Amino acid sequence: MSGIVRLCARHHTPVIAYGAGSSLEGHISAVRGGVCVDLTRMDRILDVHAEDLDVNVQAGVRRKQLNHYLRDTGLFFPVDPGADATIGGMASTRASGTNAVRYGTMRENVLSLQVVLPTGCVIRTASRARKSSAGYDLTRLFVGSEGTLGIITEATLRLYGTPEAISSAVCPFRKIEEAVATVIEAIQLGIPVARIELLDDKAMSAVNTYSRLSYAVAPTLFLEFHGSSQAVQEQSEQVAGLAETHGGGPFLWSTDADERNRLWQARHDIHFALLATRPGARVWGTDVCVPVSRLADCIADTRKDMERASFFISLAGHVGDGNFHLGMVVDPANAAEMEEAATINERLVHRALAAGGTCTGEHGVGLGKSKFLAAEHGAGLDVMRALKEALDPAGVMNPGKIFPSTVAQ
Amino acid sequence: MSGIVRLCARHHTPVIAYGAGSSLEGHISAVRGGVCVDLTRMDRILDVHAEDLDVNVQAGVRRKQLNHYLRDTGLFFPVDPGADATIGGMASTRASGTNAVRYGTMRENVLSLQVVLPTGCVIRTASRARKSSAGYDLTRLFVGSEGTLGIITEATLRLYGTPEAISSAVCPFRKIEEAVATVIEAIQLGIPVARIELLDDKAMSAVNTYSRLSYAVAPTLFLEFHGSSQAVQEQSEQVAGLAETHGGGPFLWSTDADERNRLWQARHDIHFALLATRPGARVWGTDVCVPVSRLADCIADTRKDMERASFFISLAGHVGDGNFHLGMVVDPANAAEMEEAATINERLVHRALAAGGTCTGEHGVGLGKSKFLAAEHGAGLDVMRALKEALDPAGVMNPGKIFPSTVAQ
Repeated sequence: MSGIVRLCARHHTPVIAYGAGSSLEGHISAVRGGVCVDLTRMDRILDVHAEDLDVNVQAGVRRKQLNHYLRDTGLFFPVDPGADATIGGMASTRASGTNAVRYGTMRENVLSLQVVLPTGCVIRTASRARKSSAGYDLTRLFVGSEGTLGIITEATLRLYGTPEAISSAVCPFRKIEEAVATVIEAIQLGIPVARIELLDDKAMSAVNTYSRLSYAVAPTLFLEFHGSSQAVQEQSEQVAGLAETHGGGPFLWSTDADERNRLWQARHDIHFALLATRPGARVWGTDVCVPVSRLADCIADTRKDMERASFFISLAGHVGDGNFHLGMVVDPANAAEMEEAATINERLVHRALAAGGTCTGEHGVGLGKSKFLAAEHGAGLDVMRALKEALDPAGVMNPGKIFPSTVAQ
Repeated sequence: MSGIVRLCARHHTPVIAYGAGSSLEGHISAVRGGVCVDLTRMDRILDVHAEDLDVNVQAGVRRKQLNHYLRDTGLFFPVDPGADATIGGMASTRASGTNAVRYGTMRENVLSLQVVLPTGCVIRTASRARKSSAGYDLTRLFVGSEGTLGIITEATLRLYGTPEAISSAVCPFRKIEEAVATVIEAIQLGIPVARIELLDDKAMSAVNTYSRLSYAVAPTLFLEFHGSSQAVQEQSEQVAGLAETHGGGPFLWSTDADERNRLWQARHDIHFALLATRPGARVWGTDVCVPVSRLADCIADTRKDMERASFFISLAGHVGDGNFHLGMVVDPANAAEMEEAATINERLVHRALAAGGTCTGEHGVGLGKSKFLAAEHGAGLDVMRALKEALDPAGVMNPGKIFPSTVAQ
């Protein structure tokens, strides 16, 4: 790897790291040609340190493979973006997903990385110690850098003990605002929900059809609780109480593993459920994240755009973090539709930024979001450019990504 | 602030930010002269967003001031390094302390920073959104940068709901290894202890005398549990069971707030308790952090050095994170003692690095630890230098800190 990168840098040839190919913002497009380095055969799980609750893996290891491997240790890796992505890719886009409200994102769950720099030099960004004040936080610099500073070849990840008890719950609401209010209160009360996901009526309808389920076609929260049996019951009851106060219900909860897996599989399959609503279509997923206090307003304003749209749009999100996605089911060959979708996305991004949020909660910048970074970061974008220049002066690492294309890299 | 920094940069005059002055590694020494900027009058708490569980403060706000201000909101800021440091200083050294095992360090608890760069440009490193994948993680770059890249002027911090119930506990052990084994098992079982602190017999003896307490003079765990009444009781019982298995006890726990405050005040006063053992002396505090699986061995080897020392040394630590401190009570005027202490510290650091740990868990690098960074980071130190060069080419921001002094900055 070191040799490839060094050679490419010497010849000013772009290098693009490739994992599962499940990123959503054009991260792996070779917009300036170059060498695409497939890391999927670097798939070895190198060291499980059960006592330290960490594991060191090669970058091409996939999320499901890792948890399958860990199943007998009583430990698991929680970050779950839905897709069976590689760990290197998840680190590169600072991925998160349904569990982030409890366990954090890749930002919190990567302890250390091995990275090949454009010079060919291989560094280890940190030790395995749980905390350190020994200089700049190189780990967090490379997490989310989307292959633009170097190629991640190994990652040391935090692991967690499999909870003694897990329960899941589903709760429909009359209005989306009621569901959001329930989430906000649960977070404020510090109830340690492991997952708290919102699907609007359209998403529920698509999921029911695709996954042959018969949930109410209404704004619905999917929840999961982790802890001791006692704690799980206590948490479920607390959230059920909040939901009832806000007009939600019935609050159906279960500790049955099969039922739980079916529920989350349906949640994760929403992309395919949306695709199935319109043959030949594509799903354009948006990704804003706002402070939770602004979530209800942001969703309410967004729903006005959704209602006016000429195509099917559903809403689903990791609302405990203030992060939600629209699934716009569009025909990529229809220029008018694509333009309409782009406008909805732009309006959504600027609404989120005005609310103190971000244009991307977990999908990353890639090509798709680069035009919003100046509005989001202001002069901070110049700092990012200076860091890019410092570590990749030849501009060979995944060029054209993150930074707006007007800038020479 | 912007004007001062810009002027200094233009005239190649060093700028050193000053907060509470409680840092431990010479962070605020003006080793190359220059302007010391006192931030303590920038002490306004700007915005509490109770719904979002965050607060924006000026950098000179102190930890205790913040929690006093928040007391009626039902929220608190958990990071507690002992000293009543400023938030800007705590962010700059990536501080942590007794609560980190449950709530994380400044790394996890700073959402965003306002920073004045050497150009005089003022940036905001991130939005208030709980998570984002929008480019490089500038927040984490400045957290722990010790004033060497810019001056932190505001910080947006995560807050937490005050737990419904808090209980504390004290448990003596016959041997330090038994206490460490209890900690490791509690962490591995995922028991969400809020604090789990180890003091050795020498530390207990100093604490008893100074704080007029009558704890057993034995290796002792100080613990705290946060949660619902039920959860707190459950956690206490679980840890009491583990302690008993390892020969510890009696496990005395209490939900009395006064008793709890006395206990933690005594823990925080250990520095003064040590000073009181020898008039005119100074306490040299070490700060290694290792993976918890290596903690028992690392402490056992270190105790051999402690036994051979010609002065009083106690051991105390945030052992849930693998972080522990020696308190070496030395006479700064005695060159032989200072050399002996330096040797003990060096041996300790290299022992920690060999165990996959770090030379500083929470105190930062400053002047004192810079000589160890090459051993800890290898080529990663060159990456840090490149970042420093990129953002502070004139080398005016807190020069001489973090980087070994052989390098021109």
